[in-house]
Amino acid sequence: MTLKNFLVAVDLTEEADEVLTAAHQLAVEREAQLTAITVVRPMLAAYGNIGFGSFNSSTFDLEAEALKLAKTKLVQLADQYDIDPEHCKTLLGSPAQEIRRLAAEMKAEMIILGTHSRHGLGLLLGSTASGVLHGAICDVLAVKIHDEPAAAA
Amino acid sequence: MTLKNFLVAVDLTEEADEVLTAAHQLAVEREAQLTAITVVRPMLAAYGNIGFGSFNSSTFDLEAEALKLAKTKLVQLADQYDIDPEHCKTLLGSPAQEIRRLAAEMKAEMIILGTHSRHGLGLLLGSTASGVLHGAICDVLAVKIHDEPAAAA
Repeated sequence: MTLKNFLVAVDLTEEADEVLTAAHQLAVEREAQLTAITVVRPMLAAYGNIGFGSFNSSTFDLEAEALKLAKTKLVQLADQYDIDPEHCKTLLGSPAQEIRRLAAEMKAEMIILGTHSRHGLGLLLGSTASGVLHGAICDVLAVKIHDEPAAAA
Repeated sequence: MTLKNFLVAVDLTEEADEVLTAAHQLAVEREAQLTAITVVRPMLAAYGNIGFGSFNSSTFDLEAEALKLAKTKLVQLADQYDIDPEHCKTLLGSPAQEIRRLAAEMKAEMIILGTHSRHGLGLLLGSTASGVLHGAICDVLAVKIHDEPAAAA
């Protein structure tokens, strides 16, 4: 029995639940195996092409620590949606690129991720969705994140 | 009984079938009402901001003719996927903008459209998907169009 492979990309904020809920529903409907991915951006990238002699090793320590924390959080989160730890991937790199790479590697038939309509930070996050869309080798479901604070009960 | 509204955007090429097939499957799974849209680009836009005194009225005739043809083709195509003529919309304008506008107007919960991984023409078509994604007020399913010619049986 070979299941279809679906890949859900989450950013470990409170938005992850909306994306995981949509991904879980679709995976159940299509009888697909769901794999969850989160991508940690390399910290050095923020500094551009400057020399980084003095904080080199401590930055790598921080990245290793960030990856470990992200892995733990992803496994906890995914567990609520019946995704076991073997199907949780925590990677370091550019989100859109790593999501596309993993999707190709696992021959995913669908990528599910979140997107925003607001500007500012939302535009930044939205750009991951656009980046995944460009050159994606499979279907992409972009789940609209509801930006309003949960004020109404 | 209120059905969910799904909007499927097609470009009336042979690719439309892949997008309509995916949209139809999802609409059946989610018990949603499917509306089909195709957008004809205004022909004058290709000329930019030049004066257009002499070919003004004939251009409008051509556009009206193009819209009529597109409408007929869309209705025929949609019929194969159980979408009745009242749920077929042929609009004139910028594809991404018109798709988003109609989705907002009909309070669509999902937009389904095609996207490409190839470059050239595909990148152009892909930009409609990106344009819809930015500022979309609902979920967007981008269906991967298979670019290879159907060589293998």
